[in-house]
Amino acid sequence: MPEKALAAVAMGAKQSNLQEINIPDLSPEAGLLKIEAVGVCGTDWSWYKADLEEPQILGHHSVGYIAQIGKVAAERWGVEEGDRVVLEEYIPCGNCQRCRAGEFRLCDFTDPWLGGIRYGATPLSVPPSLWGGFGQYQYLHPNTMLHRVPDHVPAPEAALALPLSNGFEWVCLEGGRLVGSTVVVQGPGQQGLACILAAREAGAKCVIVSGLSADARRLKLARKLGADHTVDVQREDLKERVAEITDGEMADLVIDTASGGPSTVTAAIEVAKKRGTIILGGFKGQPIPEFTSDNLVSKYLTVKGVRGHSYESVELALQIITSGKYPLGEICTHRYTLSQVDEALRTMGGEGEPEAVHVVVAP
Amino acid sequence: MPEKALAAVAMGAKQSNLQEINIPDLSPEAGLLKIEAVGVCGTDWSWYKADLEEPQILGHHSVGYIAQIGKVAAERWGVEEGDRVVLEEYIPCGNCQRCRAGEFRLCDFTDPWLGGIRYGATPLSVPPSLWGGFGQYQYLHPNTMLHRVPDHVPAPEAALALPLSNGFEWVCLEGGRLVGSTVVVQGPGQQGLACILAAREAGAKCVIVSGLSADARRLKLARKLGADHTVDVQREDLKERVAEITDGEMADLVIDTASGGPSTVTAAIEVAKKRGTIILGGFKGQPIPEFTSDNLVSKYLTVKGVRGHSYESVELALQIITSGKYPLGEICTHRYTLSQVDEALRTMGGEGEPEAVHVVVAP
Amino acid sequence: MPEKALAAVAMGAKQSNLQEINIPDLSPEAGLLKIEAVGVCGTDWSWYKADLEEPQILGHHSVGYIAQIGKVAAERWGVEEGDRVVLEEYIPCGNCQRCRAGEFRLCDFTDPWLGGIRYGATPLSVPPSLWGGFGQYQYLHPNTMLHRVPDHVPAPEAALALPLSNGFEWVCLEGGRLVGSTVVVQGPGQQGLACILAAREAGAKCVIVSGLSADARRLKLARKLGADHTVDVQREDLKERVAEITDGEMADLVIDTASGGPSTVTAAIEVAKKRGTIILGGFKGQPIPEFTSDNLVSKYLTVKGVRGHSYESVELALQIITSGKYPLGEICTHRYTLSQVDEALRTMGGEGEPEAVHVVVAP
Amino acid sequence: MPEKALAAVAMGAKQSNLQEINIPDLSPEAGLLKIEAVGVCGTDWSWYKADLEEPQILGHHSVGYIAQIGKVAAERWGVEEGDRVVLEEYIPCGNCQRCRAGEFRLCDFTDPWLGGIRYGATPLSVPPSLWGGFGQYQYLHPNTMLHRVPDHVPAPEAALALPLSNGFEWVCLEGGRLVGSTVVVQGPGQQGLACILAAREAGAKCVIVSGLSADARRLKLARKLGADHTVDVQREDLKERVAEITDGEMADLVIDTASGGPSTVTAAIEVAKKRGTIILGGFKGQPIPEFTSDNLVSKYLTVKGVRGHSYESVELALQIITSGKYPLGEICTHRYTLSQVDEALRTMGGEGEPEAVHVVVAP
Repeated sequence: MPEKALAAVAMGAKQSNLQEINIPDLSPEAGLLKIEAVGVCGTDWSWYKADLEEPQILGHHSVGYIAQIGKVAAERWGVEEGDRVVLEEYIPCGNCQRCRAGEFRLCDFTDPWLGGIRYGATPLSVPPSLWGGFGQYQYLHPNTMLHRVPDHVPAPEAALALPLSNGFEWVCLEGGRLVGSTVVVQGPGQQGLACILAAREAGAKCVIVSGLSADARRLKLARKLGADHTVDVQREDLKERVAEITDGEMADLVIDTASGGPSTVTAAIEVAKKRGTIILGGFKGQPIPEFTSDNLVSKYLTVKGVRGHSYESVELALQIITSGKYPLGEICTHRYTLSQVDEALRTMGGEGEPEAVHVVVAP
Repeated sequence: MPEKALAAVAMGAKQSNLQEINIPDLSPEAGLLKIEAVGVCGTDWSWYKADLEEPQILGHHSVGYIAQIGKVAAERWGVEEGDRVVLEEYIPCGNCQRCRAGEFRLCDFTDPWLGGIRYGATPLSVPPSLWGGFGQYQYLHPNTMLHRVPDHVPAPEAALALPLSNGFEWVCLEGGRLVGSTVVVQGPGQQGLACILAAREAGAKCVIVSGLSADARRLKLARKLGADHTVDVQREDLKERVAEITDGEMADLVIDTASGGPSTVTAAIEVAKKRGTIILGGFKGQPIPEFTSDNLVSKYLTVKGVRGHSYESVELALQIITSGKYPLGEICTHRYTLSQVDEALRTMGGEGEPEAVHVVVAP
Repeated sequence: MPEKALAAVAMGAKQSNLQEINIPDLSPEAGLLKIEAVGVCGTDWSWYKADLEEPQILGHHSVGYIAQIGKVAAERWGVEEGDRVVLEEYIPCGNCQRCRAGEFRLCDFTDPWLGGIRYGATPLSVPPSLWGGFGQYQYLHPNTMLHRVPDHVPAPEAALALPLSNGFEWVCLEGGRLVGSTVVVQGPGQQGLACILAAREAGAKCVIVSGLSADARRLKLARKLGADHTVDVQREDLKERVAEITDGEMADLVIDTASGGPSTVTAAIEVAKKRGTIILGGFKGQPIPEFTSDNLVSKYLTVKGVRGHSYESVELALQIITSGKYPLGEICTHRYTLSQVDEALRTMGGEGEPEAVHVVVAP
Repeated sequence: MPEKALAAVAMGAKQSNLQEINIPDLSPEAGLLKIEAVGVCGTDWSWYKADLEEPQILGHHSVGYIAQIGKVAAERWGVEEGDRVVLEEYIPCGNCQRCRAGEFRLCDFTDPWLGGIRYGATPLSVPPSLWGGFGQYQYLHPNTMLHRVPDHVPAPEAALALPLSNGFEWVCLEGGRLVGSTVVVQGPGQQGLACILAAREAGAKCVIVSGLSADARRLKLARKLGADHTVDVQREDLKERVAEITDGEMADLVIDTASGGPSTVTAAIEVAKKRGTIILGGFKGQPIPEFTSDNLVSKYLTVKGVRGHSYESVELALQIITSGKYPLGEICTHRYTLSQVDEALRTMGGEGEPEAVHVVVAP
């Protein structure tokens, strides 16, 4: 093992630089991952553009090989050196009521916004510093959640495990029974595309995806991944199109993955059928002034706010990735090296190369 | 049988007068109810104060005796002349997808706002006119939903079956598992009080009811019916009180039964705990401009719009009424005769006698 | 309209003859179906081989055209003369607690074994006699449950609606979330094959079908319809095969559609994984002496007895049939005319032509 | 802290003796419990009467005070020295699929019958030996599941947390919606009595408990705890009694907690209503030769095998214990000292003092 690892350390707003960080001695409960590829997440961009008070290594959609592992960890995780895995970003406490109920993504004790730790969201000052994926090595905390991934899967596709798992969590685990249903997905980004796959797998009869004119490439990709119809909401009226496609039946399930303004929320309520369900997976950063709760009452709608993924949904995502059933390589539009992390982040944030869907950094 | 029946016919805004209406000949599938008592519903007030285009008999929380019944109806409904029953307001088509799935309250074909028929909401011009409870007799359409009620139950309490059933529907059937939970009920009207009983029956550990200063009598009644705490939101901060009572845990379930402005919706979101559920049972008549969907996402909340009751929830309500377990007589604050229907409606609408909870008309 | 209709009337054990039956005058709530094709069901065989006390017209998987319809029925059912429909066998009362909850298949008042009426299971002596599908015309009772079917669907495939709906009911509606799961189907008859389609649609990762050596043709068909693996339990050990295929994980869901002896029940318990579900859809006619409830406890298994279909599952089945997505024509192995009803029944019962899967009678 | 702790070490069949065991040095992740009281469980008796191959300390319904705690454990568990807690028997691995889904009671890696460790079920030879509750001190493994319990609760009642939690798990979490339902509990032992409380809390309308003539005292206790009816199955026919009590409706939920022969399983199927649920919580040690799966199919029944409790159900049990709402002191029929462990076990196993319900050992 080398003594130091290169990593891109983000500091201040929209900048990072490569630093050498000491590789720690490991306790028997911990390990070390040799990074193969890391997907760039919208959350990385949020951290990156904020004026970070403390330097930190971003990146948390990590895939790699176990480089070192303590004896206890090897037994608990069921892996050994050389095994290929993807990580979840969560480092749950394992002891709170949420963790004990299997909902570790809601663990208050490790919520980084409440002072907890999480991969890609923990300052360099917390030992042993290597908390992010944008580096050569990533520390494996004793409470790491990891999943094995076969060697034949291309690394950028393996790095899709977490965004895809959100789609499976929201559509298959939160969305109810979908065989024979009509599903509308708002927003054709990584998570929206993931929802298409999940809806297809769950037996939806008809999948409709909406986006903006600037999303033309993503909407095309949506059709390749299984969407029956795509709607450019700047050129067509979503409600009218859904009514037309469904013969007035409207949608059983609407998933809003868009992170823009409030309009998708009100549109979701309009296109849902009576007794339908709306899943809100995107943050808007503002109120929804047109929101009319009477519409929920009169149409007997259910609206669920959702976040992240369970262990089970990551397994479902990996199963689909491993199966090779969908042309996921086409989602992987951009690839950068470790010295290009700033460029990768800007591309993900919409300030770099255009029309990105899935951006990976591979050292 | 008499040839004519007296009924209070509403016409124009906020007025009605007594008329004699012909009692129809009955088909073998139909029947006739001799009215014993009819509860006044908020919906009656809505119709009454609107400028009704066509005269109609209001009133749909009817309890009475089977005065006449066709042979087919007697067999289908399992009742005979002289039996005491309460009616549901719905007259479902029985053949649409909703009806076939047991959700007849969502039947589009009989929604009075879509041109359908419903007790208390059908014009005199639709034969045989006797569609409302504010009269001596009410027609029993072949698709009537009725429930038997024992003779020992006081008529005004039997007339609580429908409002109580809403509480059972929303809390017990829509609210999820409640054993050991904390439930907040917003609005101490008939439906709010019904939610208290339902929450108690479902094993809630703590029931908190909120209202306005003008609701003092209702809040007192809430405590008699089983509320652990009541909060006057004009004098206390609901969020602070719930935090205090629950030691910061907040509420598993919040049910908004208030029909006033938008403030209860935003308050419901504030007092719900992470992964909590909010049930919206009241119409607001306006948007909720402060509504922030991000709060649903960050707290992983579910919001359900609900309306009305199922057959099962009316049975649950009648079971509780019949048991005598709760002092329901205290809810029955006002009683009027058929010639006082205008007064009864004004009292229910807040323009007559003060502090009404449950108002009945008994011919 | 003709005055009389030919029908095959079953009388005594394993015999029937063609009779002319009067076509009734219709009430406004009723109708008449011109039969196009009727699938033969295992239940028909059960009636046929029993020593029927009263003559009756068998057959209840009916597809045909509305020949006549009363005014009320046309409105309630939303169809008119000339429309093509499939019928459910149930003629629910519509007023009991089961019917009101959408579970009309459990309606006690119309259970033919409790003296009720059902298509294909009602004696000729009950007017107007035309209760079965093995004839030129079938009476449409006011409480008939019918579903529209497009003209382009071949009649024998449309006649698969009911057996397929059982698969959708049991797998998709009773079987829980199946995305990514392993499903074992025991018995490759009509219902077993239906379960394969339903499991595929619901996103099962792996579908394993078991049968006997005599089922070779059906097992081949199972693979064509989407089974990943088939097991001849007379040549291979089912438990070993499932362990091998699933890498020791075993099955999330096991559906026993076999109607033979008790061995499939004990085998189902063996191949289910911890926390798995077993659906029993077949009658055995005898106890299961080896049944050990301790195995349910130690593996935390759920066992559900199921019967028939809901309105929703028939709609799901028709959606799949109409889509043309699966080679359903291959299931339709045998076709007979009205004068060959005895032959059709014997073939279905395993006493006629060999290797039948779906047998239809088309006048 | 003392250097040694006294403990009753079981060895061979039905015998144990007091030994002094070294108190270990603790890692920062571990702790030590000073035992206050330990309930005797049926499982203890099973171990005790078996011919134990290795000596072990039995007892796992432990309540006590934190005597020592490592820094990491204190933070993870949220407790400090002097806090009063009850333990769960499980020591889950925390990393397998079951643990990650919140179902740690099904964790294969710590199942003692698969070579894992569990309190009261781990040999002395596994360091640090103090794995059982029948001693002065019990070791607290890093993966211990503990729950705080207030000081005002009598220790024998606090020691009821685990058996009561089974009742809450099986009735409230596995039993579905129970408001207004009829529940039959078979077997009036600790777990059966727990099911009564759980059914009452969940809003059951009617609770019927069955037992043997020798259970007279327990059946009386059942009535005190809220059972509406008790049935001595040696003197009355259970099916007839349930039919009589429910006016022929029969039971929505039947819970078999009896550990005797197969008769309660077949009786459970008889007394369940159509669409009812049967929960099997007891091991029979033999097949059920009369079991007829056709009865599950014809009545559309669900049968669930269940075991143990979740974190949530222990919290529910402790809430009820702490509330003082039920006369739980009456369940606590026998109390022994550490030197009387053999007597305590024999009483629990039915070979000591008669009519025991809850037996505790308090050093």
